[in-house]
Amino acid sequence: MTEHSMENMRSLIDTHQLGFALPRPFYTSPDIYDADLRSVWNQSWIWAGHVSQIPEKGDYFLFDYGPESVIVVRDGSGAVRAHMNICRHRGSRLCIEPSGNVRNFVCPYHAWVFDLGGALRSNRAMGDDFDPARYRLFPVHVTVFQGLIFICAAEDPPSLAAPLNRLAPLSAPFGMENLKRVHRASYPVPTNWKLALENYLECYHCAPSHKDYAKSHTLKDPEQCDIFTPDLQDRMRAAGLPTETIGMTEPSAPEPGAEVYWRRYPLFPGYQTGSNSGDPLAPLLGNLTGYDGGATDLGIGPLNFFLIYADHLVGYRFVPRALQETDIQIEWYVRSDAQEGRDFNLDDLIWLWHVTSLDDERIIRHNQEGVNSHRFVPGPLSAMETSIAGFYDTYFDLIRNDPGVFRG
Amino acid sequence: MTEHSMENMRSLIDTHQLGFALPRPFYTSPDIYDADLRSVWNQSWIWAGHVSQIPEKGDYFLFDYGPESVIVVRDGSGAVRAHMNICRHRGSRLCIEPSGNVRNFVCPYHAWVFDLGGALRSNRAMGDDFDPARYRLFPVHVTVFQGLIFICAAEDPPSLAAPLNRLAPLSAPFGMENLKRVHRASYPVPTNWKLALENYLECYHCAPSHKDYAKSHTLKDPEQCDIFTPDLQDRMRAAGLPTETIGMTEPSAPEPGAEVYWRRYPLFPGYQTGSNSGDPLAPLLGNLTGYDGGATDLGIGPLNFFLIYADHLVGYRFVPRALQETDIQIEWYVRSDAQEGRDFNLDDLIWLWHVTSLDDERIIRHNQEGVNSHRFVPGPLSAMETSIAGFYDTYFDLIRNDPGVFRG
Amino acid sequence: MTEHSMENMRSLIDTHQLGFALPRPFYTSPDIYDADLRSVWNQSWIWAGHVSQIPEKGDYFLFDYGPESVIVVRDGSGAVRAHMNICRHRGSRLCIEPSGNVRNFVCPYHAWVFDLGGALRSNRAMGDDFDPARYRLFPVHVTVFQGLIFICAAEDPPSLAAPLNRLAPLSAPFGMENLKRVHRASYPVPTNWKLALENYLECYHCAPSHKDYAKSHTLKDPEQCDIFTPDLQDRMRAAGLPTETIGMTEPSAPEPGAEVYWRRYPLFPGYQTGSNSGDPLAPLLGNLTGYDGGATDLGIGPLNFFLIYADHLVGYRFVPRALQETDIQIEWYVRSDAQEGRDFNLDDLIWLWHVTSLDDERIIRHNQEGVNSHRFVPGPLSAMETSIAGFYDTYFDLIRNDPGVFRG
Repeated sequence: MTEHSMENMRSLIDTHQLGFALPRPFYTSPDIYDADLRSVWNQSWIWAGHVSQIPEKGDYFLFDYGPESVIVVRDGSGAVRAHMNICRHRGSRLCIEPSGNVRNFVCPYHAWVFDLGGALRSNRAMGDDFDPARYRLFPVHVTVFQGLIFICAAEDPPSLAAPLNRLAPLSAPFGMENLKRVHRASYPVPTNWKLALENYLECYHCAPSHKDYAKSHTLKDPEQCDIFTPDLQDRMRAAGLPTETIGMTEPSAPEPGAEVYWRRYPLFPGYQTGSNSGDPLAPLLGNLTGYDGGATDLGIGPLNFFLIYADHLVGYRFVPRALQETDIQIEWYVRSDAQEGRDFNLDDLIWLWHVTSLDDERIIRHNQEGVNSHRFVPGPLSAMETSIAGFYDTYFDLIRNDPGVFRG
Repeated sequence: MTEHSMENMRSLIDTHQLGFALPRPFYTSPDIYDADLRSVWNQSWIWAGHVSQIPEKGDYFLFDYGPESVIVVRDGSGAVRAHMNICRHRGSRLCIEPSGNVRNFVCPYHAWVFDLGGALRSNRAMGDDFDPARYRLFPVHVTVFQGLIFICAAEDPPSLAAPLNRLAPLSAPFGMENLKRVHRASYPVPTNWKLALENYLECYHCAPSHKDYAKSHTLKDPEQCDIFTPDLQDRMRAAGLPTETIGMTEPSAPEPGAEVYWRRYPLFPGYQTGSNSGDPLAPLLGNLTGYDGGATDLGIGPLNFFLIYADHLVGYRFVPRALQETDIQIEWYVRSDAQEGRDFNLDDLIWLWHVTSLDDERIIRHNQEGVNSHRFVPGPLSAMETSIAGFYDTYFDLIRNDPGVFRG
Repeated sequence: MTEHSMENMRSLIDTHQLGFALPRPFYTSPDIYDADLRSVWNQSWIWAGHVSQIPEKGDYFLFDYGPESVIVVRDGSGAVRAHMNICRHRGSRLCIEPSGNVRNFVCPYHAWVFDLGGALRSNRAMGDDFDPARYRLFPVHVTVFQGLIFICAAEDPPSLAAPLNRLAPLSAPFGMENLKRVHRASYPVPTNWKLALENYLECYHCAPSHKDYAKSHTLKDPEQCDIFTPDLQDRMRAAGLPTETIGMTEPSAPEPGAEVYWRRYPLFPGYQTGSNSGDPLAPLLGNLTGYDGGATDLGIGPLNFFLIYADHLVGYRFVPRALQETDIQIEWYVRSDAQEGRDFNLDDLIWLWHVTSLDDERIIRHNQEGVNSHRFVPGPLSAMETSIAGFYDTYFDLIRNDPGVFRG
């Protein structure tokens, strides 16, 4: 990105009309896409997975986004660590398999060897002046919150400590550290990642676009949501759940990128969880003493989303692959001792967010097609889309800091 | 496109050598391709179809080019209207199916409803200050000329009124309002749209590249064309056709983009129409009283081309899909009461311009391959390629006005 | 490429740290890729093939790279000539088939005719002022060295005369003018061409990545290479081979792009040639009187590489197709009178460099994946990678001269 392109991008931000959608270049410009990766994805906390994926020392998995690949590994001390999957010599990927168990990281190109903590332990022919300490793997920050692993490639990540401290008692009853992943799916959409994420942020489209979701979840209609909320809160107290929210009325987190959102809202009467029938899908999570008929929307930072029912958790990410290629990645979790067949039926468990994602794939694609038009002019956001405006605030804050590294 | 790129583009135009082909960047630059869409395609009249496609109120079809999609619809008053296929809320496509019949346009994303005339009739949760009148569908201008539908996405389209008034008596005998489309085909070519269009504009390549066309059409050899023209004009008068031309010797239309070209030229003796055998292909068009053995080249604006024989009409468009992806779109029309099997044989009807397009696909592709070379230098146009120079004049006039919207 | 992009590119060169790999944009920037084609590939000598491919007058073959296509032809005088495969009229490819025999070059578009020497011999309708002498085919320089054909599209190519004079007596005993090509293969890799070429330039990766090569070739270990060199030189003298090297310790060639490298190094004991068993693969080349158990690394200019064993020659090129698409092209040669089945077994002959290329495809791909990261920082080159530093010197010299032709 040249100086000129950067000035243009910043001018687009400065002239953006509050309460309106973003203009076309944010979804069509290769330069802005590169800025997104550098300044949003490489500066933000990203939900990479769950501690149950790497129980043993040396267990690792890769988390990839855009052109990036991160190794998430359990080191010799039992701690979760993360490193860029880049050899410090000439840049080869170190790990090729998406997951596994290793003693060290041996580069498949020239055989430089790094230990699980990222230190360079072996190399050949680098001369006497070579200082291995200068060639540790590029570190990636890790935060483990109640079993959920978040990574951040920034040198100086936004501080999640205070927001997560506030979140902890609200999520604690769900026992997220005692979950296991039972399914994951990736829905590729030919759109910019921001359109996919914006779609997730608002339920203005739920009634017209998601009939299955709208049948069971009151969020599609704020008035009905309000009507059923007092009853939900009674049931929450009965089930052992606090009724607080985070991020609804107060100013957002101290730093852009560390915003946390937590709100539990009612399902329609007859629905105990996000199932087709309304019946339970799996054993109650954590310390819950009963089905409260609620669903939690949890957001941690601008990129990570979770839906928490009384008996399962669904995690959502919108991972950029290219300017107009995005993977909607979904993971389904139940309590770690639940057994498929006996305690839950997998098809039933994944049904709702599978069919909802098929809808989303279609509507997001048609959104991108229209936004690609040179005649597109962003329209006004409705009262049910204020979360999108909030996302833009954070996004602009992050993107304004883009260093604008030359891409030629 | 940054200021720098725009200056470079304008400098290429200013230094272009009259009578020569265009330099490489006009066929290889993403920025110039975007300028083409904004400043040529979105500012010019485009032939979209024929009134017979939408006989009833609410009938619509989509016409797509580059990243654009236009809804062409018959409204409640029976008039043909056109709108950008973009919801004014967050930009989703409104119509997904390529044609159909609707009462209103309901956005598949958030269910905003627009009437056939483009007015916003229904929406939810937009607040008290929201003024629906500000969110009509983006209008697209429509001109219907003797049944042919032309659209223009410009705010202020070039005025076709005077040129079409002049054209009307020449084309009237062919009864174009009483045609029906009996076939259409799309020939994708991996080239910039301008190379496909330039190929159509000159018959210098006809003799070496199109042996079927060259066997029957004298245009491939200007001398022979002149020799056979007096006899053609006698036959034209006999068949009830005026012998005037438009755009041959006079200065072109008052505005760039509103040029009209009309010339009827002789087929070789023995050919009554553009058939393999020389025999008629379908019932005589309009008021014609006999086969005159002629073929009309009709051009309306820089982008729309028609071949009119005594018994059928062939329409041509060169629709950009990407920088080096173009669809050569051809439609075949006969009089509306002609019946396949009884009055015409479809394979015979489409034969000539099908085989000619297969030739064109090949030669245009090889042209693009050579133009892609960094060593390519545009050569001089022959006396048989002056129409290309005329196209460049119009093209430069349009592209000079490009606003250079930032593409990042 | 705008002025701004060019300044950025030159700044990347000026700030490059000696002895380190290149930064990301050299492998990811479309502008730098275009500069590579214009300033490196179109300014350098490229090994196109062997005289045995075009024995007769009018025999030609095409050599393509990036967007370029070159016709290599034997003209009426028996000399090897080369021309850009671009018609001087509107730029069509002239020759479409990859090889053949022609009397003239007839453009498939408008039938301009050029003779084997590139002169325009026939055209129509160009007017009285048209001077055919101004429209010869764009010439491409040719150097034939001991049967190997090199082409250069530059106006003023780097002079190979002196370096080749020096090389001639070293390579003469191998009789390269009396070879025939018995196999060729192309290994597409999804990487920038420079990563593929850099991989060829260093044997630091041979031990970890190429176990078959490393078993037989001492180059993978400089110490062992030194140990076995005196014995090799004794055998070379016995077989009639000079033991000199070129380009090892002296300053490189007078002009960037005309560097020549020649070094014969020992195979491990038991290996007479680059075979799996160590046994001979084909009849001895040229004047050789015995197997010396050596392998020559020959480099001519920055882009062309050859491995010469006592009984066969392998030629290597890394041909750019797109920014991150490269063909590793390999050709295998034996002496011209050798007969497959009787004198050599093809599978055995090609085994080593086939399996080695499969390894290379994998490691180069993983290298590009890492380099694509926005977090990639080039690391230090080892003592076994100094040839890469030498390549960067030549590359920078060439790229600094890039005219920066506007690409929009």
